[in-house]
Amino acid sequence: MPRPPDPLGDIDLEVFREEGRRLVDWVARYLAGAEGYPVLPRVRPGEVKASLPASPPRGPEPLRDILEDVERLILPGLTHWNHPGFFAYFANSSTAPAILAEMLAAALNANGMLWKTAPAATELEVVVLDWLRQMLGLPAGLFGVIQDTASTSTLVALAAAREAVPGLEARRRGLSGQARLRMYASEHAHSSVDKAGIVLGIGQEGLRHIPVDAQYRMSPAALKAAVAEDRAAGWIPFAVVATAGTTSTTSIDPVPALADVCAREGLWLHVDAAYGGSAAVEPSLRFVLDGCDRADSLVLNPHKWLFVPVDLSVLYTRKPEVLRAAFSVVPDYLRTAEEAVAPNFMDYGVSLGRRFRALKLWMVMRAFGQEGLASRIREHVRLAGVFRSWVEADPAFEVVAPSPLSVVCFRARFAGVPAEEEDRRNQGVMDAVNATGEAYLSHTRLDGRTVLRLAVGNIRTEERHVRRAWDLLREAAASRR
Amino acid sequence: MPRPPDPLGDIDLEVFREEGRRLVDWVARYLAGAEGYPVLPRVRPGEVKASLPASPPRGPEPLRDILEDVERLILPGLTHWNHPGFFAYFANSSTAPAILAEMLAAALNANGMLWKTAPAATELEVVVLDWLRQMLGLPAGLFGVIQDTASTSTLVALAAAREAVPGLEARRRGLSGQARLRMYASEHAHSSVDKAGIVLGIGQEGLRHIPVDAQYRMSPAALKAAVAEDRAAGWIPFAVVATAGTTSTTSIDPVPALADVCAREGLWLHVDAAYGGSAAVEPSLRFVLDGCDRADSLVLNPHKWLFVPVDLSVLYTRKPEVLRAAFSVVPDYLRTAEEAVAPNFMDYGVSLGRRFRALKLWMVMRAFGQEGLASRIREHVRLAGVFRSWVEADPAFEVVAPSPLSVVCFRARFAGVPAEEEDRRNQGVMDAVNATGEAYLSHTRLDGRTVLRLAVGNIRTEERHVRRAWDLLREAAASRR
Repeated sequence: MPRPPDPLGDIDLEVFREEGRRLVDWVARYLAGAEGYPVLPRVRPGEVKASLPASPPRGPEPLRDILEDVERLILPGLTHWNHPGFFAYFANSSTAPAILAEMLAAALNANGMLWKTAPAATELEVVVLDWLRQMLGLPAGLFGVIQDTASTSTLVALAAAREAVPGLEARRRGLSGQARLRMYASEHAHSSVDKAGIVLGIGQEGLRHIPVDAQYRMSPAALKAAVAEDRAAGWIPFAVVATAGTTSTTSIDPVPALADVCAREGLWLHVDAAYGGSAAVEPSLRFVLDGCDRADSLVLNPHKWLFVPVDLSVLYTRKPEVLRAAFSVVPDYLRTAEEAVAPNFMDYGVSLGRRFRALKLWMVMRAFGQEGLASRIREHVRLAGVFRSWVEADPAFEVVAPSPLSVVCFRARFAGVPAEEEDRRNQGVMDAVNATGEAYLSHTRLDGRTVLRLAVGNIRTEERHVRRAWDLLREAAASRR
Repeated sequence: MPRPPDPLGDIDLEVFREEGRRLVDWVARYLAGAEGYPVLPRVRPGEVKASLPASPPRGPEPLRDILEDVERLILPGLTHWNHPGFFAYFANSSTAPAILAEMLAAALNANGMLWKTAPAATELEVVVLDWLRQMLGLPAGLFGVIQDTASTSTLVALAAAREAVPGLEARRRGLSGQARLRMYASEHAHSSVDKAGIVLGIGQEGLRHIPVDAQYRMSPAALKAAVAEDRAAGWIPFAVVATAGTTSTTSIDPVPALADVCAREGLWLHVDAAYGGSAAVEPSLRFVLDGCDRADSLVLNPHKWLFVPVDLSVLYTRKPEVLRAAFSVVPDYLRTAEEAVAPNFMDYGVSLGRRFRALKLWMVMRAFGQEGLASRIREHVRLAGVFRSWVEADPAFEVVAPSPLSVVCFRARFAGVPAEEEDRRNQGVMDAVNATGEAYLSHTRLDGRTVLRLAVGNIRTEERHVRRAWDLLREAAASRR
């Protein structure tokens, strides 16, 4: 008997259609009912792995079985970022229009490395980043490019800053054998700045952390003094990373004053507004980007607070030609006249292949509209304010930092115990709340002390969810007195 | 009259359900009928941009209108990577199981930066990368981590190689003021190696290109001589990038011999198998990874030839502790005992945020099975062989390089004209074929001459599509004689 022909091509599209429709219904139920899952899963390390076969299947398996396994084996092991009780790190959201956009982007599989390999994806990226620029109140003429995450955006920005150092020729000559470079960020800057320094060959010693004021904002005077000291010691200062919305407290560095220092000293100013930047969509919160029109580069993450799923980070720069000089491996003579409208985005970052991320941002912007996005951000800031007022009104708790945006830093008070024990009990309070599965908070360290954070940012979070978290916190603290 | 409350929350999930179901149907039609679109779109730079509003909408727009605009404005401006006549670069595919996986990943929005932030996503990544390792015939114990693209994987691998240089302490001290590092790759290595060198501060001068043999494979003898020469001149040789499937011709560097040189010289061996590596899923093609068990790191891209959409690149290494040392900004005392089962993947690359990419690879592996994936790869190699035999049999054409995998390099012959004119006419042949919208080929330069490439790799490509491309090529060439 002849062997049947090997199966070729994609799976049966009728099966795709049927399972796809079922999956859409499932996703709708999931989004509506995410709070039915424990936000932090109750799994031990290795448990999910142990539930899966140790080897791949030899033959095909039905799509329905695979999707059932997702629900049976994967879902119970996931932290549910869409849960309205997610208050850890920076809470964020996946929304319905973006979910459809991601399916569509996967189906089209457009790879926007060159304009030519995906013209509409490239031009839509140009258009939506200009829309976003307008929504944020940033000046015209900024060049934007989508990266995966803020870590990459900051790496790319600092690579450009390095390329801009006069006489260095980092691209051609590298750093070995040259004078030592130094960049500056506050003690509260994100670890991605450290990582960028490591990757770029600047090293941890090439990043100097600048002290903050009582409100956790970088001190321009301290920056100025550090730059002078470093120059005297033979370092080449080249860049400052200001943060508009730090990870611990959402403090906003004084960008206008830092921009003055940078202008005077000839330093590249990069602003990390990964979380905070999105707030500027709401006109009353535009202060978050004060002075950013003078930045050389700025990163903000729509996947943090503009309702698109990971990953989508936006890097803006006033100096695209420097980014290009730092990254393009295309010879000059291959540049095309159309690059202003039709850039080859692979020339502005590490990755060559680039998936069609602009689609989800465009669909979210249109499905909600500028005012819709603003009203949701305004609501998150309001909810954080409400929570803060509860903490302030309760003598058993204290607020420990300003809350300019949607994050509140606080602590339960335990009278008469040493600081270290108070810290331990706060950790215990947090662990107890997280173990309920109804809320998930994370902590930070401020002035050497343990501090709890409540971060509002999920589009499904309502006042009742914040209230519930507060009740759980009070109960957990009370039981430890 | 009181102002109505601002709209909050996500869009109406009934609308999501209805439009989602319609979109699934649309995607099914698109996948079945992608060849109805011109593979290269007929748009001029700026045309798509001009068709879109210059400013974002103030209020919300209906999802249906947005999706209709995708079809009306975006689709005609896209290069259709799913078109079965896509033979440019490395052809690749988005498949039905992966498309559903991407919708699901977006809905779950799991961010696998830490084990804790997405335990099941982390452990599924561990599991599927071990499945893939088994399918490729690679040795047990390899550590795998998903990156976005091969450019990033190679950057990460070379950062680890740099970290492994004895006495350098690149992470802490950076490269400035230190001896100059040098790495090696063949003249045919991908530009991502150059880019990684630039980003890492090694510079273009820190990458030495090694000559190739008549079959475009790196010469181990030339490598050995270059290393000796560089050591004598004060360079510190530290890494070799071998390619298993180069971009121009899919030549496969002699990894076993290069591994010998690396072992003797104490160099990190990174293998770029971004395209070629996937072929090892088919047992008869395992030669593509010969010697790779001795590599320190290896990259292959399932988004190239394992039927998942961009982006998904896999980096394997025998030395995860070096990767971690190069990238982790988490203090040692925060390491957990569970890291072998439950790694914090953010410690093995640039990005902190990590979307749930393992899901699509898992769903594709299961939906097709190991034998199903192998049979499709075997078929692509067969189709390339068929095309090659047509070219060889036609005296008006010539094959100009070996075709170990699924790419054929060839040229139309134009008797009695200078080489430069022959090159120009070949470019004309390619442009004419691409302008038909029925096929899309790209070109390369080999030994100073223009060469056309036909790359088979799309899961929807059948023999009739290859035949049609060949007919178009012969017509275009004939009309230029």
